[in-house]
Amino acid sequence: MKTIKTHRMFDGEVRYIRHDSTACSVPMEFTVFLPKEALAGENLPVLYFLSGLTCTAENFTVKAAAQRHAAEEKLIIVAPDTSPRGENVADDERYCVGKGASFYVNATEAPFAANYQMFDYVTEELPALIDREFPVIEGARGVTGHSMGGHGALIAALKKPGFYRSLSAFAPIASPSRVPWGQAALPLYLGEDEEAHRGYDATFLMAEAKERLPILVDQGTADNFLKEQLRPELLEEAAKTAGHPLEIRMREGYDHSYFFVQTFIEDHIRHHAKALHN
Amino acid sequence: MKTIKTHRMFDGEVRYIRHDSTACSVPMEFTVFLPKEALAGENLPVLYFLSGLTCTAENFTVKAAAQRHAAEEKLIIVAPDTSPRGENVADDERYCVGKGASFYVNATEAPFAANYQMFDYVTEELPALIDREFPVIEGARGVTGHSMGGHGALIAALKKPGFYRSLSAFAPIASPSRVPWGQAALPLYLGEDEEAHRGYDATFLMAEAKERLPILVDQGTADNFLKEQLRPELLEEAAKTAGHPLEIRMREGYDHSYFFVQTFIEDHIRHHAKALHN
Repeated sequence: MKTIKTHRMFDGEVRYIRHDSTACSVPMEFTVFLPKEALAGENLPVLYFLSGLTCTAENFTVKAAAQRHAAEEKLIIVAPDTSPRGENVADDERYCVGKGASFYVNATEAPFAANYQMFDYVTEELPALIDREFPVIEGARGVTGHSMGGHGALIAALKKPGFYRSLSAFAPIASPSRVPWGQAALPLYLGEDEEAHRGYDATFLMAEAKERLPILVDQGTADNFLKEQLRPELLEEAAKTAGHPLEIRMREGYDHSYFFVQTFIEDHIRHHAKALHN
Repeated sequence: MKTIKTHRMFDGEVRYIRHDSTACSVPMEFTVFLPKEALAGENLPVLYFLSGLTCTAENFTVKAAAQRHAAEEKLIIVAPDTSPRGENVADDERYCVGKGASFYVNATEAPFAANYQMFDYVTEELPALIDREFPVIEGARGVTGHSMGGHGALIAALKKPGFYRSLSAFAPIASPSRVPWGQAALPLYLGEDEEAHRGYDATFLMAEAKERLPILVDQGTADNFLKEQLRPELLEEAAKTAGHPLEIRMREGYDHSYFFVQTFIEDHIRHHAKALHN
């Protein structure tokens, strides 16, 4: 694990880190924000932020303005990349498939299977690394994300009961198996079997979830992707059927950008802090 | 004046605007943040943020996280570009001269004089446009900026007594006529006469300032440019000699990035709001 650069902010530190990933078989980069208490060695909870299509950790780190609130609430924030990277990593010309578009699945199909083991990466390898390298409170772990990363957060928590103690999402792709972005990507990662796609679709996972972790979702009404790609109504329907606690807050006039994320990140950080500091 | 795009944030709106500049003889772009009260027609003060070398308005707008505080303090924020732009605009291969590096002067030398009339642009043309097009409180106008834009803020206020009611800067180039960046750029814009350079140097302007507007400066101690390019000690010295009220806060471990700006922007916005809402 190598720290590439460090910036002080809000008395804490943002670090850009590179490490060799076993799951993805390439070097991976992530950022971590350490509040001043963590720098002084105090154990703190960790919130994972999963980013959306085309992003790296950079977008969240520079645009979400999360660190102010994380410093106040004493949370470490970890932001991984959205896919494996590198010359030899399979890609696709569409922005919703390949690099920057892993959908956080473990791919089973060539050529993607070689590196696209992002579910294992974000829910196993990276948390193990973080737990080993930083002062964390054991098990005090939350997950959130934006768009494709909102989907990533939902499936991470739904597929790993007990592993996360708090969950939220910004404008998540609620049901990738039923929208064009996911229908472009999932067959290339997982093959044609629709059952495999549903294994990474929160609206299907919810029916058989072994845990009912409350979900907070913010969604802008002026989001260009709302009706065709995000479809929060499918999540709402699934939660209702399953009896899963879900609060979707429709935000009038907000779009899909980080200006939207920046506006509501405080609420999400407080939501996680409340669960993780208990 | 044309609004290119709009994003809702903190119940207000960020607008990206393009207009034909008379001063610079090319189209110019700026961003404006309008708190919800301004959207409802209430007159508010305006804070101008001038950006640094290589930047456009985008850096400040997406990275400074100023809008939360501007919304709370009911301030409109206007962020202009750092130079004229376009194929026919003179440039230089060095990042500290030409596009993105106007130093906010009115150039007198060819080929820059044709478009680089940035002092007039940011202190006359743009404020006149803002006053005409947005709900502003007449004369309630502050100016701040980062690095080259911190220098821009200082000279704007010092050269136009009475025009701004509040002033601050983040890591300003305190004395461009005495540091390498300015010594590369100013002769190309203003010719070899050092008197002309000093006419845009806060440390020289301060001696003969007709107004003593208090200045708030934040400066990181881990800023790579501190000793060679920024030199806040020269501003401190000039202020002491002139009896100009100046508070320089040296921030331990902070660098020159927007992570530094984001950390201290709240203090600056409160500094301006206090002066502008009186």
